[in-house]
Amino acid sequence: MARDPQLIYGIDDRPPRWETVVLGFQHYLTMFGSTVAIPLLLAEHLGIGDDRLALAKLIGTMFFVSGITTLLQTTYGNRLPIVQGGTFSFLAATIAICGMAGLRDAGFEVRITHVQGAVIAGALAQIVIGYSGLVGRLMRFVGPITIAPTIALIGLALFEFGAPVAGTHWGLGGLTIALIILFSQYLRHRSRFFQMFPVLLAITLAWGTAAALTATGTFPPGHPGHVDTSILATSPWVHVPTPFQWGWPVFTASAVVGMLAGYVASMIESIGDYYACARLAGAPPPDPSTVNRGIGMEGVGCLIAGVIGTGNGTTSYSENIGAIALTRVGSRRVVQAGAVLMIGFGAIAKFGALFTTIPQPIVGGMYCAMFGMIAAVGLSNLQLVDLSSPRNLFILGFSFFMGLSVPQYFRAHELALVASYTESVGPPSPWLAALLQVTSDVLGTIGKTGMAVAAILAIFLDNTIPGTLEERGLATPEARA
Amino acid sequence: MARDPQLIYGIDDRPPRWETVVLGFQHYLTMFGSTVAIPLLLAEHLGIGDDRLALAKLIGTMFFVSGITTLLQTTYGNRLPIVQGGTFSFLAATIAICGMAGLRDAGFEVRITHVQGAVIAGALAQIVIGYSGLVGRLMRFVGPITIAPTIALIGLALFEFGAPVAGTHWGLGGLTIALIILFSQYLRHRSRFFQMFPVLLAITLAWGTAAALTATGTFPPGHPGHVDTSILATSPWVHVPTPFQWGWPVFTASAVVGMLAGYVASMIESIGDYYACARLAGAPPPDPSTVNRGIGMEGVGCLIAGVIGTGNGTTSYSENIGAIALTRVGSRRVVQAGAVLMIGFGAIAKFGALFTTIPQPIVGGMYCAMFGMIAAVGLSNLQLVDLSSPRNLFILGFSFFMGLSVPQYFRAHELALVASYTESVGPPSPWLAALLQVTSDVLGTIGKTGMAVAAILAIFLDNTIPGTLEERGLATPEARA
Repeated sequence: MARDPQLIYGIDDRPPRWETVVLGFQHYLTMFGSTVAIPLLLAEHLGIGDDRLALAKLIGTMFFVSGITTLLQTTYGNRLPIVQGGTFSFLAATIAICGMAGLRDAGFEVRITHVQGAVIAGALAQIVIGYSGLVGRLMRFVGPITIAPTIALIGLALFEFGAPVAGTHWGLGGLTIALIILFSQYLRHRSRFFQMFPVLLAITLAWGTAAALTATGTFPPGHPGHVDTSILATSPWVHVPTPFQWGWPVFTASAVVGMLAGYVASMIESIGDYYACARLAGAPPPDPSTVNRGIGMEGVGCLIAGVIGTGNGTTSYSENIGAIALTRVGSRRVVQAGAVLMIGFGAIAKFGALFTTIPQPIVGGMYCAMFGMIAAVGLSNLQLVDLSSPRNLFILGFSFFMGLSVPQYFRAHELALVASYTESVGPPSPWLAALLQVTSDVLGTIGKTGMAVAAILAIFLDNTIPGTLEERGLATPEARA
Repeated sequence: MARDPQLIYGIDDRPPRWETVVLGFQHYLTMFGSTVAIPLLLAEHLGIGDDRLALAKLIGTMFFVSGITTLLQTTYGNRLPIVQGGTFSFLAATIAICGMAGLRDAGFEVRITHVQGAVIAGALAQIVIGYSGLVGRLMRFVGPITIAPTIALIGLALFEFGAPVAGTHWGLGGLTIALIILFSQYLRHRSRFFQMFPVLLAITLAWGTAAALTATGTFPPGHPGHVDTSILATSPWVHVPTPFQWGWPVFTASAVVGMLAGYVASMIESIGDYYACARLAGAPPPDPSTVNRGIGMEGVGCLIAGVIGTGNGTTSYSENIGAIALTRVGSRRVVQAGAVLMIGFGAIAKFGALFTTIPQPIVGGMYCAMFGMIAAVGLSNLQLVDLSSPRNLFILGFSFFMGLSVPQYFRAHELALVASYTESVGPPSPWLAALLQVTSDVLGTIGKTGMAVAAILAIFLDNTIPGTLEERGLATPEARA
C-alpha cells in the first residue's frame, strides 16, 4: 500500500518532542469522553451510590489501566498506533451481572468483584483465541463488503451520543462542532497547527468560553454549560491503583458466559479497528499474525483490567482512530506518549478531576465530528468493491440496515428463552435452564451490538452467495484493507 | 450511462402482458405496507376512533390517489418508473395540526379538512417550485458526496420499522427474509421466475403458512401471525373516492407553514429517489428539466391528495425503487400497470381489505430486505468519489452521522422557541410569536428527517470546503448519478 501523501507523520515517524507530547495529549483528550462515560454509566448498577470517592478512584483506575494496556499493545501487541480503553460492549453483560438475584442487595465491593471474575475468565479465553492463531485463520472469510458496514456501524451506532449530548446546550455543542470543522477543514492549509490540533484547539476554546460564562454567572450550577471546579478542592492528589484493590475476584458460571458475548463483540469491533487504523496510519493492511497478536494482547489488557478492577475490560478505541483521520498523524510514538500521560493522569487524581469539568455539550460536539469520521473510513473500503453488482449491493445494504435495525429490536425486547420455554413447554430441567439462559445472554448481547450483527450477516452472505473474487474486491491482497 | 447488462427490462421495455400485470402487482404489494401504515398511524390523531368504516375508506382513498398520481408522474411528469404514494414526511406536521388548540375537541371531519387545507396550499407552492425550474437550477450544487448519504439514509432511517416489525413474530418475519434472500440471491440464476418475483413469492408463501397455522388454531386471534379475515365479510364491495368527500378544506396559516417543512423534506427525498430510480432502471441521470417536471408533478399529486382527502400528500416511493433493484425490472409500463391496479383495488373495497390480512411480521420481513437495498443504492454513488481524500471522508461521514443523530435529538426534544423566548425575555408580540412558532415547526420537522439533515449539511460543506471537481466526483456529467 503506497503511503498516503496527505499523512503528516506515518506509523514509524517520530515527531519532535513537544509535538509528540501535545499530540499524545490530544489522544488523551479524545479517549477521555468514553473512558469517563463507562464508570459514570456503571456507577448506579455497581451500587456506588453517593460514594464519590469510590467513583473518582474507579475513573482514575480506568485511565491508569488504559495507559498500561496501550503501551503493551503498541510495543508488544499489534504495534499499531491504537489506543486501548474501556469497552461499551461489556456494558450489557456487566449490568446483567449486577442485577443477578444473589447480588441485588450486595454492596459495591461485592458486585465489582463478581464483574472482575467474569472479566478475568473471559480474558483468558481471549488470550487463547488470539495467540493460538484462531482469529487469523478465520480472517480469509472477511472481505471489504464485510469490513465496510462493520466499521461504518462502529461510528454510526453511536448516534445516540452525538447530537443528543451536544444538544444539552447547542450553543456550546455547536461551537465545538463549528470550530473542529473550521480548523480541520477550512483552515487546514493555512497552518500546520490547525491541521494537527483541531480537536484540542476547539475543545480548549469552547471550554474556556464555558468557564468564562460560568464566572460571569450566565451558566449557573445545574446549567449544562456550567464548569464545576469544586471537585478539584475535594479530590486527593495521588491515587495509584493496585491489584485486587476492591477485594478478591469471584467467579460464577453465568457471569462468565454472559461476559463472553461481550468479548465476541469486542473482538469483531477490534479487527475492524485494526483495518481502519492501519489504513489511516499508512501501515500495511493487518495480516493474520498482526491480528492474532492484537487480539491476544487485548486479552492480556482485559486480564490486567480484571485484576486491578476497572469493572470493565479494554478494547481498541475507535475515537482515537477518528483523531488520526482528522489530524493525519499516525505515529506510534505519539500514541505511546498519550499512554504515559494516561498512566500519569490516572494516578494524579487532581489532574483527572480537572478534565471532568469539561461540560457535556462540548464532549458531544467532539463526538459528532469524530464518530462520523469512523463511519466514512469504513465506507472508504467500498472503493475496491464492484458497486454495480446486485449481489454486493444486497449484502452490503442488508447487513448495514440490520446492523441498525436489529439492536432496535433487542433494546425493546429482552430475550428470555427460559420464560418462553416455561410458558410453552413447562419448567425446564436445571441444565436446560442454564443452557437457555446462556443462549439468551449471548444472543441478546450480540443482537444489541449493531456491528456484530452486520459482521455476522455480511460474512455469511458474502461467503455463500455466488460471486467472483474480482466482484467481491478480493482479487488482490492489497484489496483487503 | 451504459445500460446495466444485469437489467432484465429497461425503462422503455414492455414485457409480455401477463408479466406486466404480475410485475405491476408486485409493485402494488411493495407499496402496500407504507400506504396502509400511514392512515393506521394517523387514525388516532385524526380522531377516527372506532369508526372502522371511515378508516377503510381512508385506506382505499390512499390507494386510489396513489394510482392516479403514479399514472400522471410516469406519463407526464419525470417519466421515471417511480411509484407515487403517501409520505411519512408529512406525519409530524399532520399530527401537530390535529393537536392544535382549536381542534382538540373536534371530530374526524373537522380535523381532516384542516389537514387537507394545509396540503393543498403546500401543493400549490410545490407546483411553482417545480415548474418554475427553481429546483433544477439548484441542482448543480448537488454532487455524489451529497447524494450518497441522502439516499442511504432514506433506507437506513427506517431502521425502526425493520427488525422490530419483523420481530413481532420472528418465525414469520425470518421466514419472509430467508425466502426473499433465497429467491433473489441464491436461486436467481436457476429461474427467471425467482429473479423477477422474489418478493411476491416470499410473501405469498409466508402468508399461506400463516393462514394455515391460523386455520389449525396455532395462531389464535391476537397472535401477531393471525390472519384475520373477518374484515372481508363486513367490508362493502365498492367505494370510489370523490373530491371533498369529508367536506370543504379549511386553510389556517400555522397549519400551512408547518406543512411546508414537510414539503421541503419530501422534495429533497424525491430528488434522491429520482437518481436512484434512474440508475437502477437504466435511464440517464435525471437532468434539471426531468427533476423540475418530477417535483412539479408531485405538487399536482399532492393537490389531488388534498382535494380528494387522504389526510396526507404523495411523494416518490423508495420501497418500489428497492423492488426494481431486487427484480432488475425497470420498465415504466410495469409501474403503470401497478398504478391501474392501485386505482382498481382502491375502489374495490373488499380487495383492499384482503391485503390488510397480511400479518405484520411478514410486512416487516419485506422491509428488512428492501430498506437495506435502498441504502446500498445510495452508497453505490461513492464509486465515483475519491475516498482517500480527507475532505470527502469528513463531509460524507459527518453528514451521515448527523443524519442519524440529529433526529434522535429532535425526537426527544420538541423545539419550542415561543416558550424559550417567553422564559428568557418575556411574552413575545403576536407577530413575533407567529414567526417563532413557524421557525420551530420548520426546524423541528427538518430536524426529525434524517435525510434532510444529511442533505443540507453535505450540500453546504461540499460547496464550501476547498476541493477539486475530480476529487468531488463532479468531473464528468456521467459522474453525477
